[in-house]
Amino acid sequence: MRDFLPADKARRERVLAVIRERYRAHGFDEIETPVVEEYARLHAGIGGDNEKLAFNILKRGLDAAAIRAAADDPSALTDLGLRYDLTVPLARFYASHRAELPTVFRAIQIAPVWRAERPQKGRYRQFVQCDIDIIGDASARAEAELVVATLDAVDSLGLEGGSVRINDRRALDWMLDSFGFPADERPPVLITIDKLDKIGPEGIVAELRDRGATAGAVDALEAFLRRPMTLEYNPFGERQIRKALPQGAPDEIVAHLTGIGDAVAASRAEVDIPLVFDPFLVRGMGYYTGTIFELAHPSVPYSLGGGGRYDGMIGRFLGQDVPAVGFSIGFERIVELVSAAEADGAAAVVLVHDRDVPVGELVALKAQLVAEGSRVRLEQRTKNLKPLLERAASDGYTAFAPVSAGVTRADLDLKQLS
Amino acid sequence: MRDFLPADKARRERVLAVIRERYRAHGFDEIETPVVEEYARLHAGIGGDNEKLAFNILKRGLDAAAIRAAADDPSALTDLGLRYDLTVPLARFYASHRAELPTVFRAIQIAPVWRAERPQKGRYRQFVQCDIDIIGDASARAEAELVVATLDAVDSLGLEGGSVRINDRRALDWMLDSFGFPADERPPVLITIDKLDKIGPEGIVAELRDRGATAGAVDALEAFLRRPMTLEYNPFGERQIRKALPQGAPDEIVAHLTGIGDAVAASRAEVDIPLVFDPFLVRGMGYYTGTIFELAHPSVPYSLGGGGRYDGMIGRFLGQDVPAVGFSIGFERIVELVSAAEADGAAAVVLVHDRDVPVGELVALKAQLVAEGSRVRLEQRTKNLKPLLERAASDGYTAFAPVSAGVTRADLDLKQLS
Repeated sequence: MRDFLPADKARRERVLAVIRERYRAHGFDEIETPVVEEYARLHAGIGGDNEKLAFNILKRGLDAAAIRAAADDPSALTDLGLRYDLTVPLARFYASHRAELPTVFRAIQIAPVWRAERPQKGRYRQFVQCDIDIIGDASARAEAELVVATLDAVDSLGLEGGSVRINDRRALDWMLDSFGFPADERPPVLITIDKLDKIGPEGIVAELRDRGATAGAVDALEAFLRRPMTLEYNPFGERQIRKALPQGAPDEIVAHLTGIGDAVAASRAEVDIPLVFDPFLVRGMGYYTGTIFELAHPSVPYSLGGGGRYDGMIGRFLGQDVPAVGFSIGFERIVELVSAAEADGAAAVVLVHDRDVPVGELVALKAQLVAEGSRVRLEQRTKNLKPLLERAASDGYTAFAPVSAGVTRADLDLKQLS
Repeated sequence: MRDFLPADKARRERVLAVIRERYRAHGFDEIETPVVEEYARLHAGIGGDNEKLAFNILKRGLDAAAIRAAADDPSALTDLGLRYDLTVPLARFYASHRAELPTVFRAIQIAPVWRAERPQKGRYRQFVQCDIDIIGDASARAEAELVVATLDAVDSLGLEGGSVRINDRRALDWMLDSFGFPADERPPVLITIDKLDKIGPEGIVAELRDRGATAGAVDALEAFLRRPMTLEYNPFGERQIRKALPQGAPDEIVAHLTGIGDAVAASRAEVDIPLVFDPFLVRGMGYYTGTIFELAHPSVPYSLGGGGRYDGMIGRFLGQDVPAVGFSIGFERIVELVSAAEADGAAAVVLVHDRDVPVGELVALKAQLVAEGSRVRLEQRTKNLKPLLERAASDGYTAFAPVSAGVTRADLDLKQLS
């Protein structure tokens, strides 16, 4: 877990403010849930592998007997835990407050989550997730709204040129079925296929053969992966989707994907549709039931976010089926890509004062500049001014002025901070 | 702990944005620390009664033997906890990062804290604290900057007319000494005096007599509380402070308080100084060493925040004395006072569409309005439009327009939402 110093914290808050503002413009409404959820809810089986990474809170008031009795079942020591994602809390929130929410509910959640990950580069035990979700709309419009809003937010951060890789879990399942993988083999086969970017088609085929997957099905998959592909310009749409899948893909799935593309296209002045159909995109979480997507950007080889349909999950808390689809921005990755040095707009002035300037004069001078709309920091003069001014510049200050006793606003000699 | 629905969450974020912006303007820099701190640090004795209210996190990977061994010492089950305030983490942060911070460091911290309070009206187990602290300045300027920035933030929220009750722990100690209370009696006497607003002077005197405090000292306190007070206009300053204290108050303490008043006065165009000296203001926390203050507002009988000097605490983590003073806004109380219905500035439009409008048309129309700078929500028409429009209005939407198939931007008939 990390401390954030002023320059980093300012950048993080600026990025969050832009994302929040763009998502709100697209009709999403922010909500907030408590950091702490009930243990049973966090361990209901919908959090996947993240459940094992939850930080659990020690019950209060346990006596010696209760502790001894919990020796063989440590879960008896806890009744609450820190959330490991924002999806489980959203499902709980929606089940609790459905009557107070619009029929189609577009949620923003921007908040930290906790996972007891083994410490490693780029992985944090506390990190911020930025999710948008649409609950109550089964149509392709929901996916289109998520994609358009997300690309707008990313564009607004100066990261133009993003695109979304898209697939459908049902298409994956149908494809594996058409190759001849029996139903019980498909989930582990998906885990292998998820490594395509890392180990390539040969690696996939070798791993499946090693593991003893149905031989004929692996052969069919291999033939499909090796089929000749004509390089031609194919805008996102029915033709491209059908070409990327084996023959005979179900019309319903193709129509849903095509519908997303049409709607995204209609929302943009640009000719290019920022969607790429990828029949081998898997996404890790077990709860996806339909469309899945990942946010790509030309500046980095890894994804900057992702999401998908999880029509089954909300229903588990509510006892009835509710369609839902979400898109999560990888905030910690995106914030690294956004340039640090963006001015605040307002002037930011450091008043470098002599030791003997009376307190009242300094506070009055500062108040005048603040009233004029400036951001103002007082610093007592040091022998070597350079480190003082460099730190102020890295904290976003743009100008400085020396202040001696008796100096008034009219005397101030403001100089630019380089 | 609470869920926040869209209207509440929007209000909270708006209030936080104003506070953050005003504090930044006054030269404070925001930092962030992890929600989770080490157990030992949270229980080092500087958190006062709040230490007992900490939520502790269950150690991971405890086996049956380790759990049994912890039966008589539950603290062996935990190594981390949720912070119960932002002051302990700030002291830890400053000790870790001092070399990277300005000599006088002005910190903003806006973040949730957790306390296992017994559930009761107006008390929450998770709540947001908004703290500003100045570390490294022992002069009255630090207090003045805190007071001026805090009153500006509160003014900017539309809560003009706030004022700050101020006292000094050293003055309290001197006063109790001058009445004749021995050193070991003074801490419990302060706890009683802290109830002055609730039980009045008679209650104080009765409680102290009951508890067997030094009789002559209680008599002296009673005489002082009953002394005749002339009602006359006394601006905050040396004369008022000396009149409010017993004869012979130490010059150093009076000069520090007077210095704060002079600096605050110098920062304001108004003649009235928004400071009130209150010789019986106590503030609960044990770590205060000098000035203490509370934020008052004419609209409510309770305080909206408070703080003080805690020159000893930072030094405990750093091994050397560092002056520090902080002011914490009672965010949860303030957010209740800020009017809910403040427009976002931008137009916010609900498009109420027929069921048969093609997805592409809707998404395109929405994108056009978003590009024009509006915030846009899509809602499918319901038989009775009233609840739909009322909810939209409570979420801050200002206009709506019906949309049938084929309607374009030029056709849109925008109507005001009442």
